[in-house]
Amino acid sequence: MNAEMIAVGTELLLGQITNTNAQFISEELALTGHNMYYHTVVGDNPQRLSDVIRTAQKRANLIIITGGLGPTQDDLTKKTIADVLGLELVRDAKAEEVILNFFKRRGDGPMTANNLLQADVIEGADVLDNVVGFAPGMMLEHEGVTYILMPGVPTEMKTMFTNEVRNRLEKAAGDYRLESRVLHFYGIGESRLADQLDDLITKQTNPTLGTYAGKHEVTLRITASSQNAAELTPLIDELEEKVLSRLGAYFFGYDGESLEEKVVRLLTEQNLTVSAAESLTAGLFQATLASVPGASRVLRGGLVTYATDTKTSLLGVPEELLTENGVVSEATAKTMANNVRQQTAANIGVSFTGVAGPGSHDGEPSGSVWIGFSDETSTTAKHHLFARDRQYNRERAVKEAFWQLYKYLEEKTAKTSH
Amino acid sequence: MNAEMIAVGTELLLGQITNTNAQFISEELALTGHNMYYHTVVGDNPQRLSDVIRTAQKRANLIIITGGLGPTQDDLTKKTIADVLGLELVRDAKAEEVILNFFKRRGDGPMTANNLLQADVIEGADVLDNVVGFAPGMMLEHEGVTYILMPGVPTEMKTMFTNEVRNRLEKAAGDYRLESRVLHFYGIGESRLADQLDDLITKQTNPTLGTYAGKHEVTLRITASSQNAAELTPLIDELEEKVLSRLGAYFFGYDGESLEEKVVRLLTEQNLTVSAAESLTAGLFQATLASVPGASRVLRGGLVTYATDTKTSLLGVPEELLTENGVVSEATAKTMANNVRQQTAANIGVSFTGVAGPGSHDGEPSGSVWIGFSDETSTTAKHHLFARDRQYNRERAVKEAFWQLYKYLEEKTAKTSH
Repeated sequence: MNAEMIAVGTELLLGQITNTNAQFISEELALTGHNMYYHTVVGDNPQRLSDVIRTAQKRANLIIITGGLGPTQDDLTKKTIADVLGLELVRDAKAEEVILNFFKRRGDGPMTANNLLQADVIEGADVLDNVVGFAPGMMLEHEGVTYILMPGVPTEMKTMFTNEVRNRLEKAAGDYRLESRVLHFYGIGESRLADQLDDLITKQTNPTLGTYAGKHEVTLRITASSQNAAELTPLIDELEEKVLSRLGAYFFGYDGESLEEKVVRLLTEQNLTVSAAESLTAGLFQATLASVPGASRVLRGGLVTYATDTKTSLLGVPEELLTENGVVSEATAKTMANNVRQQTAANIGVSFTGVAGPGSHDGEPSGSVWIGFSDETSTTAKHHLFARDRQYNRERAVKEAFWQLYKYLEEKTAKTSH
Repeated sequence: MNAEMIAVGTELLLGQITNTNAQFISEELALTGHNMYYHTVVGDNPQRLSDVIRTAQKRANLIIITGGLGPTQDDLTKKTIADVLGLELVRDAKAEEVILNFFKRRGDGPMTANNLLQADVIEGADVLDNVVGFAPGMMLEHEGVTYILMPGVPTEMKTMFTNEVRNRLEKAAGDYRLESRVLHFYGIGESRLADQLDDLITKQTNPTLGTYAGKHEVTLRITASSQNAAELTPLIDELEEKVLSRLGAYFFGYDGESLEEKVVRLLTEQNLTVSAAESLTAGLFQATLASVPGASRVLRGGLVTYATDTKTSLLGVPEELLTENGVVSEATAKTMANNVRQQTAANIGVSFTGVAGPGSHDGEPSGSVWIGFSDETSTTAKHHLFARDRQYNRERAVKEAFWQLYKYLEEKTAKTSH
């Protein structure tokens, strides 16, 4: 199908938020073999929304609309589309029950009447469940055009798309299939990666190769298309092998498993625990680890030694060592990693000491970071100079530590399996 | 002027990138008093781009186009617009010189001919310098419509907008000005907030009121417009006063200062320090505090006591207390907050113990969280049931602690100033 995506919301036109839904939906459409030709954003205005719908009807046969399904007066998407199509709104019993039950359970004050308006749907529409929020989605066909209405809140929309919309779009696409595999790399920039794959990128037809610079990583998307679904995986495998023979040293995994998730899985498999002593990162490493379900099997805990004297009082780093070597030093990082490992009875201790910025500290420039690493047999520390803004330097230090942990665990796995 | 923004690029329609330019330009337009009514995204296709331009001409008198000014074959924005307007492309001598000089300086191999195409501009256009890349921008008026063409690469576009476009748009706006103020609220849902302001929202004309559900908070934007700039602030002040007389208890600040930043500022002003003992949040509270520049003046550090036994070994919570009351309990939260405050010699100790989920723990449901709070005079703990996914529960617990800290510091300020 030829698609147009329409996002409804004055907050988008005022620049309060970015239309991230457009990227998600576009990517999904490409994967299910539909063509996205236009994105449109329009405000909470029934006249302009009607006009935009009428324009879309002329140039698309799949119109995906997000936003404006909520409980407030400016949520007018359903009503406007129903009017354009000459249809009525009807109350959906299931959605109504979900809302009533929620307010009954919560029990802190009465439900406002506008909440129930969220249970109204366009007559004849296939109702799409919203398991995150209250407003259900809708899918309907009318005079040769398919309309899909979803909430604008990204978490609600994404969950609804995944649960309710994706399979319907796949069915509509028939035999034509696209398959993508996304490879993640750390420690190499996008232009260097593209340069090393230049010949493969230049001659690409099927599969195609696309690079994208993500947060502290580069991703490479391999996409194959075919009328014969059985051909897709071998096509991708073959190209992936060529890519990894050149860039395997930077590769850490596929979409669906982040570097942190991979580290938690490997730690669990090897029955190892980790702890951390964090200065400039102030808990970000441990909090990132704990964001992965199952982290409690591998994370012991640790310390945030932000003020210099807490490195001594909480972690037992000798004052003289700090004075002689400086707080941001190899000796401090090593002692921090070793001490926190012993204090928490963990197998691995990680430490961070550095200058987040802005501004230098004790003669060390902003972005200068030592990362310590300690296990039962040795303690080491590596220096990095990240040199961007405060947030980048802290996040990058955490990512770097996960990368080191990953390499360490990978090597262990290789040893035990040979 | 009534504006439409058109982003050109197939990569946007494939979902490879997000149209962040739209947010930046929309915000800038609002500030210079122009109305943004539509965003459109279209691929690198001359026919569809022509159609989109013709649609925009009917509904806008300011059309801002980004993307498609580069050196490759799919960069066809200039040519297409020139064709639609019946104009020619001419070589711009200054832009040509910049490109030739760059390749002369670089000296690594010959310049490819397509690079010079970037120096072509639409005849009669005001040429906008690009100090980041090669392709200059353009601004021209044609039959009552103003066209602005800029590169699609965000850094190039933003720099060009700031240096070359902003002052031109301010001039075009004449005396007409818009002013917005964004208020942030915590602890109230969007629908309840809208319900309490229902009469104000219904009768809004100038200023207007818009609500938006952000991450763990709700924002309310008050926007006033006038030909007389002096009227704007009083108009907003008056409506803000009405809003805060109803919802002041949930209000914490304006755009430009997050809740965390506000807390760091108040702590600094009152010369107070804070520490934390974190279980389910695993360092997220401290890491969030440390993301604010200047946090080193107020954050002492603290502990991540993730594994139950580290609550005893690192933090000195008696084993019997844990056994008797449970790890997720008022007694544990209070002892954690008090102990970490004393251990780090901080003025305030905060603690978190709870079940992040998925799944319950020790009979406590997922999302059940105790937050402890201790200062020199008292130690308390409050229970919360957040009951969503792991990430939400952890982030919400951290936000709740910042809210409690903010309320505490605000009360202290009020006491000292009266």
